[in-house]
Amino acid sequence: MFKKILVANRGEIALRIIRACKDMGIQTVAVYSEMDTNSVHVHLADEAICIGPAPSKKSYLNVDSIITAAMVTKCEAIHPGYGFLSESSKLVDACNLNNIKFIGPYKEHIEKMGNKSEARKTMIEAGVPVVPGSQGSTNKAEEALEIAKGIGFPVMIKAASGGGGRGMRIVHLEDEFIEKFNMAKSESITAFNDDSMYIEKFIEEPRHIEFQILADNYGNTIHLGERDCSIQRKNQKVIEEAPCAAISEELRNKMGETAIRAAKAVNYINAGTIEFLLDKYNNFYFIEMNTRIQVEHPVTEMTTGIDLIKEQIKISYGEKLNISQDEIKPNGHAIECRINAEDPSDNFRPSPGQIEGYFSPGGYGVRVDSHIYSGYTVPPTYDSMIGKLIVWGKNRNEAIDTMKRALNEIVITGISTNVEFQKRILDNESFLENKIDTSFIEKKIVSVKL
Amino acid sequence: MFKKILVANRGEIALRIIRACKDMGIQTVAVYSEMDTNSVHVHLADEAICIGPAPSKKSYLNVDSIITAAMVTKCEAIHPGYGFLSESSKLVDACNLNNIKFIGPYKEHIEKMGNKSEARKTMIEAGVPVVPGSQGSTNKAEEALEIAKGIGFPVMIKAASGGGGRGMRIVHLEDEFIEKFNMAKSESITAFNDDSMYIEKFIEEPRHIEFQILADNYGNTIHLGERDCSIQRKNQKVIEEAPCAAISEELRNKMGETAIRAAKAVNYINAGTIEFLLDKYNNFYFIEMNTRIQVEHPVTEMTTGIDLIKEQIKISYGEKLNISQDEIKPNGHAIECRINAEDPSDNFRPSPGQIEGYFSPGGYGVRVDSHIYSGYTVPPTYDSMIGKLIVWGKNRNEAIDTMKRALNEIVITGISTNVEFQKRILDNESFLENKIDTSFIEKKIVSVKL
Repeated sequence: MFKKILVANRGEIALRIIRACKDMGIQTVAVYSEMDTNSVHVHLADEAICIGPAPSKKSYLNVDSIITAAMVTKCEAIHPGYGFLSESSKLVDACNLNNIKFIGPYKEHIEKMGNKSEARKTMIEAGVPVVPGSQGSTNKAEEALEIAKGIGFPVMIKAASGGGGRGMRIVHLEDEFIEKFNMAKSESITAFNDDSMYIEKFIEEPRHIEFQILADNYGNTIHLGERDCSIQRKNQKVIEEAPCAAISEELRNKMGETAIRAAKAVNYINAGTIEFLLDKYNNFYFIEMNTRIQVEHPVTEMTTGIDLIKEQIKISYGEKLNISQDEIKPNGHAIECRINAEDPSDNFRPSPGQIEGYFSPGGYGVRVDSHIYSGYTVPPTYDSMIGKLIVWGKNRNEAIDTMKRALNEIVITGISTNVEFQKRILDNESFLENKIDTSFIEKKIVSVKL
Repeated sequence: MFKKILVANRGEIALRIIRACKDMGIQTVAVYSEMDTNSVHVHLADEAICIGPAPSKKSYLNVDSIITAAMVTKCEAIHPGYGFLSESSKLVDACNLNNIKFIGPYKEHIEKMGNKSEARKTMIEAGVPVVPGSQGSTNKAEEALEIAKGIGFPVMIKAASGGGGRGMRIVHLEDEFIEKFNMAKSESITAFNDDSMYIEKFIEEPRHIEFQILADNYGNTIHLGERDCSIQRKNQKVIEEAPCAAISEELRNKMGETAIRAAKAVNYINAGTIEFLLDKYNNFYFIEMNTRIQVEHPVTEMTTGIDLIKEQIKISYGEKLNISQDEIKPNGHAIECRINAEDPSDNFRPSPGQIEGYFSPGGYGVRVDSHIYSGYTVPPTYDSMIGKLIVWGKNRNEAIDTMKRALNEIVITGISTNVEFQKRILDNESFLENKIDTSFIEKKIVSVKL
């Protein structure tokens, strides 16, 4: 096994990786910016190297500094965590050049899945369902209507140059198409000076369902079941669950097999996630693959008893997967709430600063992944996530009860956090009834004055 | 289900019970001494009542105050935790008189099992193997010596009302008997106001193996597997594990069936623990039954996924057990280290005082049951245990690695703790090889200068 690994990240995920390495008897080297001198990951690693000033570009995104740190400390591998350089083919290249293992997939996987239109093409070839849509763009209403009829209503008309909702129209009925197309087009011309439009199937009230994949270098690809990440705010996940309590075993198997097919289509190696949209008729569509460990990986660990960071490290070292698909029998229900240093009453403005008091929840069924402590200063420079509260219960209701308890228990003073916002979600009747989709927060929570 | 429960305890177990109640949607009332005003259990309960000054006799052991608190707050039940009044038939009587449920067994179970010689007699009648020893108790040294000679040395002198190691002596040689008997007797008088003693065969190098029992009011009695609590210091458990990695499935079943037979011999109801000594020839002997929840219950929870406090409450409410013996399939391995505010380098002298800095370990496989936080003052009045670190791994080795990591991670400054002492045990080769018995610490650890 590797003797020493460099952890190219900060915050809770750096701590998470250091913990897994310690569990495996592997030495760790932390890297940190000048802003993170007092960070727990710096203190818990066996060695720590400052790689530059606070701005990420000058430290956590600086490939040269990180590679130098790994060389100087004789690390055999680099774990990039999530975010920062976790999907950087430049870092993979630099690792290869310097005979350092990148703990993650190969460059080709990152590049193929990172390019959304290429990924879409690959999936179509592999027979993985994608959101139906036009091949290219058009500015002709009649041509667009034919495409829409081919896809089937409802459809979404989108400006090729669009953004922020402009030049977009949802069309439920064929009769309305031409009029709405022309409205969207003229909006697009006004806003973007471009009349090229494309047409996509409009997925109604979708859930975001993703499958955790593990694949080794010997052709073994398994999935560890799904996560339901429908609770999102502006496309950022807020709460994640495993499993999705709303799908049948049959659908789960079908989606899982499809996820494996998607990963195999690019001969994927290491941990990865296949993300789907699931509509209310149980049709599912590939949206993207994340070629790294994800923030929400602990819910899968809680239901499967498999340590995903350990598996990543073992796969990168060249070990064979020692779990077969048949042995994966998810048990109970897990929920993760992201704890952010932000102020939900002020449009979720980040709230950095010193944490005065901290009480960490605990007890039966509770896991805390966080680097904070009383006296720690949350820097203003990085992501506002300061921890993850993860709970396990025999079923979804028990997990929700335990999460409510943990959210009521946690004390963080000195800064604003989203703890009360999370409680609101946990108290919402639709959430409790598991009637959720990706618009849940927008429709049911944000509109409420906090 | 109960609407409101009074928690007649303090520290981590009060918190543990409040957490279970919250998970079940039950309101809680904390009681506290004047010394515990800033205790977390006081803040997390829905209501809290001060029941008197610091000395336990005037507060946590004051049955009248506790009953009054329960009446005033309209509690339907009282959970006594462990220690304090958890095995007090006086509290049970007072509960019955006032139509309050005592969450635990009935008075007759506490009394039958609390009186060691009566328990022993009952076990013999039920065909449960006991440590060879005197039939009844005696307070006469000469009579006791004759009994000891009949059993054969080495023998153990025990106070009939004993517990926690007080009033106990091992005697290897006949010559030493009278002196040690008198020492044990005077200790017993001081501690329990009772001079009745009994004599037992001293089992050499035994493991302490105990079985967790759950029994409802409908004749259903199951066991949840065993805990190995051989790592003790002066008869106080220091580390507990589940399962015992050294016994065969056959022996486990045999001991488990015997444990059930022992519980059924007194028609036991609620959670309880049958403690055995297991000698090196795999002979096992009943030593006692604890008629309450135990400190080390979380290791069983981690391997079975069953919340024992919830089960206690459900049984007391009159619910049927909804788990059958066949469904109990312990998974993986769990270890608990007790974290004490004490100074191992100064003969484990308690080390109360203010905790300055605290970092709580976390992440994969780690559970923390503790009421401490940065700024909390550990009072000098109570037990020195300030928390429990519990870990889970796929097997004993993985659990040990995770415990080592968690012990390295925990930071408690301002007071002395046994964290370094725990690390020493975890690093000991005999411990790693699972070559342990109840004399392990005495033989392998304490002698080493810390």
